[in-house]
Amino acid sequence: MPEQPEMTIQGWGPGSSRVATVADAGEGAEETGGGLELTRDPELPLPKAARRHLARELGWTPRATPPVAVGEIRLAPSRLPDDVRAALAGLLGEEHVRTDRESRLRRAGGKSYLDLLRRRGGDASDAPDAVALPGSTAETAVLLALCSERDVVVVPFGGGTSVVGGLAGVDPDDRPSLSVDLSRMASVSDVDVASSLVTVGPGMRGPALEEALAEHGLTLGHLPQSFEFATVGGYAATRSAGQASTGVGRFDDLVAGLTLATPSGVLELGHPPASAAGPDLLGLALGSEGALGVITEVRLRVRPRPRTAVYEGWSFRTWEDGLAGLQRLARHDLLPDVVRLSDPEETRANLLNAGGAGARLLRGALRARGRAEGCLLVVGWEGLPPLVRARRRAAVGVLREHGAARVGRRVGESWRRHRFAAPYLRDRLMDAGLLVETLETAATWSALPAVYDAVRRALRESLGAPGRQPLVMSHVSHGYATGASLYVTVLADRDDGLPLQQWLGAKRAATDALLAAGGTLTHHHAVGADHRPWLEREVGPLGVDVLRAVKQRLDPRGVCNPGVLLPD
Amino acid sequence: MPEQPEMTIQGWGPGSSRVATVADAGEGAEETGGGLELTRDPELPLPKAARRHLARELGWTPRATPPVAVGEIRLAPSRLPDDVRAALAGLLGEEHVRTDRESRLRRAGGKSYLDLLRRRGGDASDAPDAVALPGSTAETAVLLALCSERDVVVVPFGGGTSVVGGLAGVDPDDRPSLSVDLSRMASVSDVDVASSLVTVGPGMRGPALEEALAEHGLTLGHLPQSFEFATVGGYAATRSAGQASTGVGRFDDLVAGLTLATPSGVLELGHPPASAAGPDLLGLALGSEGALGVITEVRLRVRPRPRTAVYEGWSFRTWEDGLAGLQRLARHDLLPDVVRLSDPEETRANLLNAGGAGARLLRGALRARGRAEGCLLVVGWEGLPPLVRARRRAAVGVLREHGAARVGRRVGESWRRHRFAAPYLRDRLMDAGLLVETLETAATWSALPAVYDAVRRALRESLGAPGRQPLVMSHVSHGYATGASLYVTVLADRDDGLPLQQWLGAKRAATDALLAAGGTLTHHHAVGADHRPWLEREVGPLGVDVLRAVKQRLDPRGVCNPGVLLPD
Repeated sequence: MPEQPEMTIQGWGPGSSRVATVADAGEGAEETGGGLELTRDPELPLPKAARRHLARELGWTPRATPPVAVGEIRLAPSRLPDDVRAALAGLLGEEHVRTDRESRLRRAGGKSYLDLLRRRGGDASDAPDAVALPGSTAETAVLLALCSERDVVVVPFGGGTSVVGGLAGVDPDDRPSLSVDLSRMASVSDVDVASSLVTVGPGMRGPALEEALAEHGLTLGHLPQSFEFATVGGYAATRSAGQASTGVGRFDDLVAGLTLATPSGVLELGHPPASAAGPDLLGLALGSEGALGVITEVRLRVRPRPRTAVYEGWSFRTWEDGLAGLQRLARHDLLPDVVRLSDPEETRANLLNAGGAGARLLRGALRARGRAEGCLLVVGWEGLPPLVRARRRAAVGVLREHGAARVGRRVGESWRRHRFAAPYLRDRLMDAGLLVETLETAATWSALPAVYDAVRRALRESLGAPGRQPLVMSHVSHGYATGASLYVTVLADRDDGLPLQQWLGAKRAATDALLAAGGTLTHHHAVGADHRPWLEREVGPLGVDVLRAVKQRLDPRGVCNPGVLLPD
Repeated sequence: MPEQPEMTIQGWGPGSSRVATVADAGEGAEETGGGLELTRDPELPLPKAARRHLARELGWTPRATPPVAVGEIRLAPSRLPDDVRAALAGLLGEEHVRTDRESRLRRAGGKSYLDLLRRRGGDASDAPDAVALPGSTAETAVLLALCSERDVVVVPFGGGTSVVGGLAGVDPDDRPSLSVDLSRMASVSDVDVASSLVTVGPGMRGPALEEALAEHGLTLGHLPQSFEFATVGGYAATRSAGQASTGVGRFDDLVAGLTLATPSGVLELGHPPASAAGPDLLGLALGSEGALGVITEVRLRVRPRPRTAVYEGWSFRTWEDGLAGLQRLARHDLLPDVVRLSDPEETRANLLNAGGAGARLLRGALRARGRAEGCLLVVGWEGLPPLVRARRRAAVGVLREHGAARVGRRVGESWRRHRFAAPYLRDRLMDAGLLVETLETAATWSALPAVYDAVRRALRESLGAPGRQPLVMSHVSHGYATGASLYVTVLADRDDGLPLQQWLGAKRAATDALLAAGGTLTHHHAVGADHRPWLEREVGPLGVDVLRAVKQRLDPRGVCNPGVLLPD
């Protein structure tokens, strides 16, 4: 099993600053040029042009706002009762129950902007009182029964990459909390090549999984931005989507079955290939975010590694043209496997931020086509060569009809190389006094323009002030026949006095606006603590009550991740 | 709205014997030769060769065993309390509450072999005490609250085509029962062409829906054998699959949202295109079979009518070759939109049963290729011509590698023409003293051969006796990357003394066998009353408890279709 480095406490990436190389197994990389070197330059300085542009646009004064030293982070003493600790040690082994400072700090919260603000400011009040590392479904089930009996809150920990407060650990009754780290359950078993099925431990991360699958000529192909650190259990618990989900499907679509350990027992769910035996209980476990129990095993639908991969850039004149083109592709089932349409703000920022030969090339290509402005579209097709050719040819016809101009493969390849880089950049931007966060939603093709307008207006109104304007950049990241997702990145001059409140206000305004315009509460980030207040807007009070009834049956004492999903 | 004729009480098809023509809107019929004339010859005599073959194989003596006259069917007086009847009439209008004999008989049970045996024998003890026809979600919600308060059991009625006892209406407390007929809620609204979404009333049938969609150049493409009579609400409530589901997806995949009226209120579920906001509540309503409430509206994902359709027949030397070929196609995402592989028994029977020029042609074609024996594969591709061509070319390569020989388009077209004919034939076979029933399951590609063997063995052992052997015919009807469905038709000499017991014993043996071998309890027929005893085998006792908890919240008095889904 490949090494799985722990993430740094106050930001993104491994604790050390080494540059890792992972086999980019989801993309037929062997056939198209080898492994993918991840850009992990710990400095990642912005190009001067980008820095000037941001300072001017945002009214931002670049300044050094580094995090406090890790040693200065405040951490309260562990409140785990001694006898519970002893019982856990008896169950799991002494070395798998930890209350040391570093273990607790590394599992404090996730990686949202709010999480990072807290950790950078020295606040770890959301740290668990202890960390337990079960090694099996059976151990996890006993652990959950024990915690339920002894009123200890359980927060499952996979990659720790939540950006919606999924690891908040907040409990209305303020009980002691235990982080259940699943890194010991991180292997692949039951490889059934004929049935395209493998069984995977919840703690397994993407790179290790792809490496194991590659030995069988297989790939999962689930490539979210958090790919290097997020785990299979986390993907399932949050209904994740990856950058190639338009083609391979959302993570939901890739789960053929799973095991959910709960305080009331163990559920084995899912019956591939398909069953009509009553309501879909597997769909209740997907997206349960630890609030119903701990996912201890996932059966995944895999596929042969693609024989070819074609990535390229196109440029639309306007956002409206781009949406119309994608909608037409979607309607006729012609969407490429990867679809990523940036609005004018994001296109411009990408051009400014990109350094090196690739960016110069892109800028030149766009100018040559009279598209210094416009909307960049990155598309990718993977699979069997003749089908990739036929699908690409049909799609290209539609793109051209909607006025798109081809800007070439280098743009596509450049995007692939930097596909996991954004969270690293965020740390550097925060160091320099910026607010930087993302949010995402989805809407039908008909509602999407209104949702786009509403979110941008809300963010601008909330974060704007005389001489200060946020930069709001958006892209469509996943297409469906019925609509698309919208991913929004916002940059603003940080309010160093009340940074949490600054973002909480903006997030509230944006969420109210996108829901009112017909967007979904989240397309792939889940509910966590941050979206809890709005869950009822999406599923209705009776829907929330149904979820409560399920939780009551499985977790009667409410010890399973009480801080997320369900409103208080 | 097109006329929706009611089905005959003791068999399949409309009460009258007229021959109807429906636009075969799901198949781009306009481009490929016009509407589909349904074969509804009320006699449908078996060809002599088939009759002789069956008599010899089964030890069957052809004999006239007609149903009792409809007038002789026994029906107990309605037990609906007068004041409940009056309240319902006040709510819905006098003409929408019915207790007359014909209304009750037409909504007694479904169309399983067991249902038909009962109705043909004069037994209608499962008939509802009354029939109500609500016209809206609001009326349905009030009706459900009233029935809950007054302890009246509610059985939703769509097309009445259940083959698993989905309309059994059995109540452990023997309360009066009300059939809630949804035929007044049968229109299309909110046609959003850009988002490929339409909203449809639950009582709408396939032909009327396809006709309405065709006006917008759209199709749903859901074509189960019950297409002429089954309704959208029924499809959703039973997690239906259609003959083209390999291509367009199961009905689950086509539902973007729905409204579920329950005794505790109304749920609005589903947020297209996709949401990660918690567990999937829409998936709880799909497959709920009336046990959680009544589906009063369905939002469907539709698509442009296909520009071309290619259907053709192929022949494999053996069942094993056929399965290996399909598995390989599935693994590489090359499955055609329609895939139907018959085993040797079914292939032989199809050849014997088919009359007319088409059958002669097929027999000739097979003999010419040395395939008088073998396994017939019917495949169909639909969509944009260049993609159909590319997909077909890639698939044909795989088929040939697995030894398949092409037998031409006439076979494919003949299958399309007769695709809804089997249930009509069943009535005639029952008239002549035969047991005739189907069952279905699904399994991973690895488990499928064992499931196939197990089901056949169980049926043969249960229904065989010296000089009497059942004919067990199977086909794969839907392919997935992870496995396939298996659809089994069984014919045997009927035990005229204990016909119900004869089939109940065989069904029990077959179900035990297929579950033990790794099959799912049902692939697309749902649970109903008939599969209830085995639900716990599939979802586990805790899974059943979760469903009970959901039901308790939505239907605390247990009035919603108590005879189905959940074991007592």
